[in-house]
Amino acid sequence: MSQTSAPKPLRLGLAGLGTVGRGVVKTLTAHAETIAERAGRPIEIVAVSARDRSRDRGIDISGYRWVEDAADLARANDIDAVVELIGGSHGPAHDLVAGAIKAGKDVVTANKALLALHGTSLAETAEQAGAALAYEAAVAGGIPVVKALREGLAGNATRRLTGILNGTCNYILSTMEDTGRPFADVLKSAQELGYAEADPTFDVGGFDAAHKIAILAGVAFGARVPFDSVHVDGIEAVAAEDIEFAGELGYRIKLLALAELTDDGISVRVHPALVRRRTSLGEVAGVMNAVMIEAEPVQRTFLEGPGAGEGPTASAVVADIVDLARGSRLPVYTTASRNLVERPLVPIAERHGASYLRLRVLDQPGVMAGITQIFAETGISIESLLQRGRNPGEPVSIVLVTHEARDAVMTEALSRIGALDAVVESPCLIRIEAV
Amino acid sequence: MSQTSAPKPLRLGLAGLGTVGRGVVKTLTAHAETIAERAGRPIEIVAVSARDRSRDRGIDISGYRWVEDAADLARANDIDAVVELIGGSHGPAHDLVAGAIKAGKDVVTANKALLALHGTSLAETAEQAGAALAYEAAVAGGIPVVKALREGLAGNATRRLTGILNGTCNYILSTMEDTGRPFADVLKSAQELGYAEADPTFDVGGFDAAHKIAILAGVAFGARVPFDSVHVDGIEAVAAEDIEFAGELGYRIKLLALAELTDDGISVRVHPALVRRRTSLGEVAGVMNAVMIEAEPVQRTFLEGPGAGEGPTASAVVADIVDLARGSRLPVYTTASRNLVERPLVPIAERHGASYLRLRVLDQPGVMAGITQIFAETGISIESLLQRGRNPGEPVSIVLVTHEARDAVMTEALSRIGALDAVVESPCLIRIEAV
Repeated sequence: MSQTSAPKPLRLGLAGLGTVGRGVVKTLTAHAETIAERAGRPIEIVAVSARDRSRDRGIDISGYRWVEDAADLARANDIDAVVELIGGSHGPAHDLVAGAIKAGKDVVTANKALLALHGTSLAETAEQAGAALAYEAAVAGGIPVVKALREGLAGNATRRLTGILNGTCNYILSTMEDTGRPFADVLKSAQELGYAEADPTFDVGGFDAAHKIAILAGVAFGARVPFDSVHVDGIEAVAAEDIEFAGELGYRIKLLALAELTDDGISVRVHPALVRRRTSLGEVAGVMNAVMIEAEPVQRTFLEGPGAGEGPTASAVVADIVDLARGSRLPVYTTASRNLVERPLVPIAERHGASYLRLRVLDQPGVMAGITQIFAETGISIESLLQRGRNPGEPVSIVLVTHEARDAVMTEALSRIGALDAVVESPCLIRIEAV
Repeated sequence: MSQTSAPKPLRLGLAGLGTVGRGVVKTLTAHAETIAERAGRPIEIVAVSARDRSRDRGIDISGYRWVEDAADLARANDIDAVVELIGGSHGPAHDLVAGAIKAGKDVVTANKALLALHGTSLAETAEQAGAALAYEAAVAGGIPVVKALREGLAGNATRRLTGILNGTCNYILSTMEDTGRPFADVLKSAQELGYAEADPTFDVGGFDAAHKIAILAGVAFGARVPFDSVHVDGIEAVAAEDIEFAGELGYRIKLLALAELTDDGISVRVHPALVRRRTSLGEVAGVMNAVMIEAEPVQRTFLEGPGAGEGPTASAVVADIVDLARGSRLPVYTTASRNLVERPLVPIAERHGASYLRLRVLDQPGVMAGITQIFAETGISIESLLQRGRNPGEPVSIVLVTHEARDAVMTEALSRIGALDAVVESPCLIRIEAV
């Protein structure tokens, strides 16, 4: 085959050879020819860097230059783009990405913490340097959701994003529902199965989901999202009993990541929530991730897929690499940095919505009157009330579903209810979200 | 605000001012500033063309040049890109698109028939002329699925696409299930509600879904899909009784559009199918569209959204326009025309799968033996068999679910069963698809 000028390869420096790095190397080598055809030019891994050169990763890296200090990839003249798969919001990952961008090199990263904390400042640097910063793999690898928001729905005004963005939490909650087992027990199995880390805080505490929704909020709303202001509750306090009661009421409990435009600004929050069964989000089971996008004029678009793991994350990284090779030049956050909206996030106290409330009370006359009196005084109306079993003089569980109320008012009511003598445990509140 | 050089606007000529055209004008004008920020330059409608200038469309078109002959948009020097929203695989729509491309103008179209029938030849012309041909709106407007396949999953090898791509059919089948009413009756209501056309053949006959899956197959597999070879069955023959039996067996009936890579090549087909309840596709209700993408390394990605209507389709058209304004240059079918795979489609007779079969037989001794004997002789094994009620000497319905078999073998068995004296109606076969 004769061609007058062979297209120049896109030359990559790849830092980090963990699960994702291995997946990227595998995909780029296994499908090299097809990917080159699609990209319009070959993709070449020139150099790699990782902590341990000798470790057996099940891939052949002997054809790539080994670089001890990842930061050197940013300085190499024979590298066009740096693929950062080290992770972490600071340290080597940050130095490499910032260094590469400043040197005018394009960057592809899977690093959600880095993007959530430093995304907008890196975006500015990238714009100034004329470099691309691509990060599809940072959010729900198996779902091309950054691309959907930034390009596929570029003509839309987004109202709300509702995501299930942490597979570990969704697996734990699904398993608690299927088996009736308590959180700590299911977490332990998840750790044994490799679905949860030895230190699970980052996942079960909601921080991973918070990083991801902060990034998506930035993309969808063209906004600077101050990560410190994102409200984050984890799933540690969800009891088996709550899942059972939720089921009786027609709901499931999910760790939701929400970003919405309200009259007061942008609200970004992560917390467990009751969502209706037989809805798209209500049926997302196991380690899957999903995002519901509500926007005009599109109405509703729902995306679901695996959120983590070697294959799905590699899929996202390679898609970004192909974009670069094709010459795509896209604003990091849907719009140029100078257009990004900057204002404080709406505090969770301003949320206006329904709630599920579980109380542990002594089964004795007058208790219900005391509780309903507090709701009446705070102006919260009750939609339904469940009490299962009777046990005079002993503690029983009562579940209430309230109509819409401000979170701040709900907090006040809870604090007063918690102070009643007959209430023997701190009340458990879980928000109800329409999805 | 001082800028050394204001960015040049992208100047559009828009042909067709029906529902979609109106939506595009509305979106581009209502969100002009945001869209310009996202696109990096203003989008300007310069000229419009439609059949009737004086018709009240609820939008102000007085600021745009009126062009009597749409083909003139392809020749206008002050137009950078043509937006074709006329529809139809030939005639004015084809002439305009081909003319614009040849003149080196970019084209955005929502025309599925045009793409399904002439897409690859238009793609070649576009490549030669250096023009873009964008058509996100041709398939499931509310779902950015072309972008997902061509870009977001560009590193993947797709194995299978399973789509619900016609909202009219899904609405009719959902309503038949909810109400128990027969097809003809529900179709009539759908027509009254505006969910079905006066001549519904294009939708209920499966042709609309076939156009869409042919396009998606081209994108996903990087293949030329000869539309004439796509197998198309509509939903006209689905009986209320089938939906009821399917429900008893744990299934729903959906009009599926499938494209899959088999050992023999690419299979592209549209037909009613039993799909399991409580699966992503099994739960797609009403006028929604959805696509399940199975590919490596991503595994499974599922996308759902409104498939038609003013807003969702306008969303897709405007996204393509923003892509053009941003300077994206993408291969029309994931890969350049010279790389497109060209081979005949696998005939439906080669399908290997399970089937649902409903027979109307006389309730008399020996009938079941005659039927099962034919299955035994053709090597088809039966998974389950339902007969409801008894009515000696009178016709009753029998439902069988078979294990996997070749369609050709199934057809032979059906023809022999249909010839039995006790079988009083043509057997009704609906394929079962794992989704």
